[in-house]
Amino acid sequence: MSDYRPSIAIIGAGAVGGYYGARLAQHGHDVHFLVRSDYDAIKQNGWTIQSLDGDFTLPSDQVHAYDRPEAMPKVDLAVVTIKSTANHQLPALLTPILKPDSIVLTLQNGLGVEDDLAALFGDNHIVGGMAFVCINRLGPGVIHHMDHGVIRIGPFRESGRPITKQIVALFQSAKIRCEELADLKYGRWLKLVWNIPFNGLGTVMDLATDALLAKPAGRQLVADIMEEVIAAARADGVTLPPDTAKHQIDRTYSMGAYKSSMQIDRQMNRPLEIEAIIERPLQIARKAGLASPNWEQLLKMLLIF
Amino acid sequence: MSDYRPSIAIIGAGAVGGYYGARLAQHGHDVHFLVRSDYDAIKQNGWTIQSLDGDFTLPSDQVHAYDRPEAMPKVDLAVVTIKSTANHQLPALLTPILKPDSIVLTLQNGLGVEDDLAALFGDNHIVGGMAFVCINRLGPGVIHHMDHGVIRIGPFRESGRPITKQIVALFQSAKIRCEELADLKYGRWLKLVWNIPFNGLGTVMDLATDALLAKPAGRQLVADIMEEVIAAARADGVTLPPDTAKHQIDRTYSMGAYKSSMQIDRQMNRPLEIEAIIERPLQIARKAGLASPNWEQLLKMLLIF
Repeated sequence: MSDYRPSIAIIGAGAVGGYYGARLAQHGHDVHFLVRSDYDAIKQNGWTIQSLDGDFTLPSDQVHAYDRPEAMPKVDLAVVTIKSTANHQLPALLTPILKPDSIVLTLQNGLGVEDDLAALFGDNHIVGGMAFVCINRLGPGVIHHMDHGVIRIGPFRESGRPITKQIVALFQSAKIRCEELADLKYGRWLKLVWNIPFNGLGTVMDLATDALLAKPAGRQLVADIMEEVIAAARADGVTLPPDTAKHQIDRTYSMGAYKSSMQIDRQMNRPLEIEAIIERPLQIARKAGLASPNWEQLLKMLLIF
Repeated sequence: MSDYRPSIAIIGAGAVGGYYGARLAQHGHDVHFLVRSDYDAIKQNGWTIQSLDGDFTLPSDQVHAYDRPEAMPKVDLAVVTIKSTANHQLPALLTPILKPDSIVLTLQNGLGVEDDLAALFGDNHIVGGMAFVCINRLGPGVIHHMDHGVIRIGPFRESGRPITKQIVALFQSAKIRCEELADLKYGRWLKLVWNIPFNGLGTVMDLATDALLAKPAGRQLVADIMEEVIAAARADGVTLPPDTAKHQIDRTYSMGAYKSSMQIDRQMNRPLEIEAIIERPLQIARKAGLASPNWEQLLKMLLIF
């Protein structure tokens, strides 16, 4: 067991937030869930988790669920799992539940959210991370954790390194696979090298990864976009290995007909995380004077939706 | 009645060719249909036409259907309605049925097919045209002509002007709406101004015209592609009016959620007319030294399919 026992808020308890929060609660932690559409169901029936790490339920009398942040207690650790398309709500969602020394861990896609949170709540209190997992919502309060997979987290500033290590230990003690990132920005850019072509093209064209890579023309365009992202990363101070694009494409073949989260959002008619995944990283490339014609065109097309 | 009474071959009697051929046969013309997949059904049941210009059937004993050109008689007028994706078959399909003075009328999409045919069969014998119609195949030998619409045809060379006028009169006498084009090349480029963005983007993104135009970003990208096509037309000697893009976009709103033929081909998993509609016109832009970044990117993405 970890000796770090914070009170925890899950801000946006959808599939990912619900799963991790339920795991932490299952292991005796003090977890408070901010829930929107499934609030009534969770108040009545709690959480039902199907997981290849073990099924379990949390009855409603063991679940602290809230439909607005003003009703929540102030916590030591706020875990942000809302979609980045709702990030304009973050000040209103977080301010009521934070104390001066609270930590905010964001597990969202794309670039820039830690900067926004740091500007609001202070550099030292921000930890960022990415979930490489497959977790779906089967119904109100019912979550299916379908595949192993890991959360990788790192501090926004090195001053956040000790608390990051404590969060990693906390998660691991609650059966959540979690790893520490030596360099959060490096991790974010590495994920963007994959996300920008496969979320971007996959959404624009409504094609899964196997279809995007089936012909040389698709492999070439994916590789060209990846190189544009790698150049932007370099301009942002992150030097990725020279074979990054090839490696990312090679590993994608093993994923089969994988639909990116943004392609699924398109198919479900949900808001698309264009700003966080596509546009904010592109602004860094533009500011550095880089031409990114393929990436620019992706954005032009995504803005049609 | 027209006094031009040619023997006629319909090369590729799908929905469009089947409808026009059946109309001509209904009005007493000597029509020979080259049919592929529906050959057995048409041999057995003839044609069944549902049309807002009047339903009719052609019983099988009144239909001359063939499954290969070698079995067909030589004709005075060959009407080509195969998809341009099968144009490599044209020499083999046409050579057996043409006499030295036969006329070839191609009603296909895109650019360049008249040049190919002229190289094979002589400049003076080629007439080109475009069908602005909505005709679907409901089943083997069963065709639904759903909307009014017109064929516009013009000679490849001015020497073909007299025969073009005779074909227009022939079609009109058989209840087929047909107009003469003063300038075939102008007509082709004007149609491409619409086809390249709406077939191209519509196919890449799997979006109908209303979705492509719903937001300013989509209208801008459609307009930008149209201007690239208008510049290519100018380089090819065709000057379109300055308000062409605006006019083409404005008239598209009235079409509602219209799916382009290429988008439907994508949805049906059929070959896409990329070469004729997108690539050959783009080669003209490239040869003229024009930069067409939006159009180039469309082609890159289409080649992924």
